Amino acid sequence: MAMGVRAGIVVTGTEVLTGRVQDLNGPWLADQLLELGVELAHITICGDRPEDIEAQLNFLAGQGVDLIVTSGGLGPTADDMTVAVVAKFCGRELVLDEPLEERIAEILRSFMGRFPGADFDAVRAANRKQALVPKGGSADGVEILDPVGTAPGVVVTRAGGGPTVIVLPGPPRELRPMWHRAIETATAQRAVAGRTIYRQETIRMFGLPESGLAETLRDAETLVPGFAGLEITTCLRRGELEIVTRYEPDAAESYRQLAALLRERHPRDVYSEDGTLVDDQVAQLLSGRTIATAESCTAGLLAARLADRPGSSAYLAGGVVSYSNEAKAELLGVDPALIATHGAVSEPVAEAMAAGALRRFGADIAVGITGIAGPGGGSEEKPVGTVCFSVGLADGTTQTRTIHLPGNRADIRERSTTVAMHMLRRVLSGLPVSV
Amino acid sequence: MAMGVRAGIVVTGTEVLTGRVQDLNGPWLADQLLELGVELAHITICGDRPEDIEAQLNFLAGQGVDLIVTSGGLGPTADDMTVAVVAKFCGRELVLDEPLEERIAEILRSFMGRFPGADFDAVRAANRKQALVPKGGSADGVEILDPVGTAPGVVVTRAGGGPTVIVLPGPPRELRPMWHRAIETATAQRAVAGRTIYRQETIRMFGLPESGLAETLRDAETLVPGFAGLEITTCLRRGELEIVTRYEPDAAESYRQLAALLRERHPRDVYSEDGTLVDDQVAQLLSGRTIATAESCTAGLLAARLADRPGSSAYLAGGVVSYSNEAKAELLGVDPALIATHGAVSEPVAEAMAAGALRRFGADIAVGITGIAGPGGGSEEKPVGTVCFSVGLADGTTQTRTIHLPGNRADIRERSTTVAMHMLRRVLSGLPVSV
Repeated sequence: MAMGVRAGIVVTGTEVLTGRVQDLNGPWLADQLLELGVELAHITICGDRPEDIEAQLNFLAGQGVDLIVTSGGLGPTADDMTVAVVAKFCGRELVLDEPLEERIAEILRSFMGRFPGADFDAVRAANRKQALVPKGGSADGVEILDPVGTAPGVVVTRAGGGPTVIVLPGPPRELRPMWHRAIETATAQRAVAGRTIYRQETIRMFGLPESGLAETLRDAETLVPGFAGLEITTCLRRGELEIVTRYEPDAAESYRQLAALLRERHPRDVYSEDGTLVDDQVAQLLSGRTIATAESCTAGLLAARLADRPGSSAYLAGGVVSYSNEAKAELLGVDPALIATHGAVSEPVAEAMAAGALRRFGADIAVGITGIAGPGGGSEEKPVGTVCFSVGLADGTTQTRTIHLPGNRADIRERSTTVAMHMLRRVLSGLPVSV
Repeated sequence: MAMGVRAGIVVTGTEVLTGRVQDLNGPWLADQLLELGVELAHITICGDRPEDIEAQLNFLAGQGVDLIVTSGGLGPTADDMTVAVVAKFCGRELVLDEPLEERIAEILRSFMGRFPGADFDAVRAANRKQALVPKGGSADGVEILDPVGTAPGVVVTRAGGGPTVIVLPGPPRELRPMWHRAIETATAQRAVAGRTIYRQETIRMFGLPESGLAETLRDAETLVPGFAGLEITTCLRRGELEIVTRYEPDAAESYRQLAALLRERHPRDVYSEDGTLVDDQVAQLLSGRTIATAESCTAGLLAARLADRPGSSAYLAGGVVSYSNEAKAELLGVDPALIATHGAVSEPVAEAMAAGALRRFGADIAVGITGIAGPGGGSEEKPVGTVCFSVGLADGTTQTRTIHLPGNRADIRERSTTVAMHMLRRVLSGLPVSV
């Protein structure tokens, strides 16, 4: 595959370097670069020491990258030095941008309205530093990006030739919108002008083990003409398989044949070819209906997942977290005799939980989940990871399954919500359930 | 602060670089180095290209690190090149270690017993590559570590002076045990001999804005003797402030004074000085009591958070997700007239929800949460981010507050659970609630 524009990412912040805060920006930016058709060569992470940031910038420049994206170090405090270090690296003077300082002051004023008694002048003085930016305009390869929070971003090309640096704030909710603005600037567009335009498609599967997919992909090497032109990465995510394929436009027919092969071999498992998540599909399928949940081991995670998207109040009636046996009886009307006979983790109890949720919320569809998330509570007959699911419809039909999930307590609880989402998808689509 | 032993981490693997697999090794190794008293300067991530791995090793050597830890690239396939690249970097010849090859063959034989029909000779030939290791013994600065999976690890010092490289496999379940063996070798111990033993302490605060903490830390520069000997990192995590301080043992008195200053200035906000999370404290305080939740905008997130830890069934009775008004009335007994008069997001409704949960679950304490997570549903009077909390006790006392939370839908929902945890902590500790 052609080697077009190459990039590096510099993640700064002692809390990220030391692993106390998980870096969400590196992977997110990697994905954005990939989509853009820019080849990512290196991600480097360092603390807040200016010498270390500078060393990483010089390393990446030495590797011949065309674009460097930095995250973090734009705050008002003394240890936030990224803009100054980048300006020095790019051979640019740092100047106070007064209109920008005024905009930051405006943001602070409205923000501080919530904290009566706070000292506005002191805060403003600290934030004055954030209005120090490299000198120059778009024609010189310098662009200043208005703050999303209080920190402005910068796009600046190294004077005398060399990489363009996009300087973004650390908090993901500020970095993400600012990235989209940064990459649209004339200076950034000049840096990525020589990139290869790739297409990228995602196929999602549920139910197939990873080894089964590996086998099909091995066969695809001989069955799909032009297979070598497809750059395929597969990964396990939340208990599903995600197959991302990147290809240049002239390999589109090869991709079409790969997708057809996956569908043909695994008709039950391929559920999305357009990037949609099972969450999107369930939300769509629930249109005009209401749903209720009855959760034991997941303890609210499924209800919370259903409520993740805006507008979910149109279909989510509510749920019960029936952690104790008394709660199962009192709130969902589960017959205590059923628990005594079959155990709290059993298909009859999952069914009774779903039926109780249907009834109590007057919903069209309900899910009951009861299982053993561990680490304790397992037995030979019902080991840790045993989870019973039941989906009930208002017409009285139910679909019930018991699954054995791998992993630790958190894995088992999260994967249980994925299994439930896929059972919902199949029931709502009128497909037979068998997970 | 003394500059003791410095280290760098090199994470290899295209799936990690592109963000499709989360890197768990960098943060884990960072933590191990910190505990060991080794200063971590850089983490670098690259794909499987040997040139990129070599460039990163050279970069770190140029930065003067004493120790480099690599993860990944030890598999049997052609793109797993780390040992060869490290041997070249260290100026060491690669030789076939026949006893090691025999041990790998033994492992494969037992492993492949599970796959009848697999071609043992073909697999063994592929794995022969894994027995190619740098020439030399412990006295020359070369140590070979027996495989945890099928890949051996290597500890090797650059010939003629320079860093020692610890080469570890990528899968965390192989890397972690092998790290502990690697660092115990004579070669690794020589590399870290000059390390400083640091102490590290964590203070957690809730309620204080970041700017308020910054101000106190600025004052501490003059008020705390020896402040410069404290290496302080602060970060916002789940709506709380975390202050981690690392110092050499002779700065212990400075740290004591810093902690005292924070307590004195922010007596309400400092809630943990021993590393415990609010979740730990609430779990502790709930000992011998039961709790129930009634959630609207958080839709199960608080119940799920309370159930995160093993053994939570001892105190979590359960919860209701009352997303619709009908659910609030039907499952929690909230008077519909109350909703009609005050609105679903109001303190009286939050109180009635908590009271309903107390009653329905027969719990000792209950929390009601109702709010506007957005992006829609806000009004001038009750903008997006308005959340009402009520904590009720079985004796009839209640504590109710309305908070305005910043951020997007996901932020507001998650921060709501943090606010609720802190209200619980204060009520359970017999402290007045005011968040």
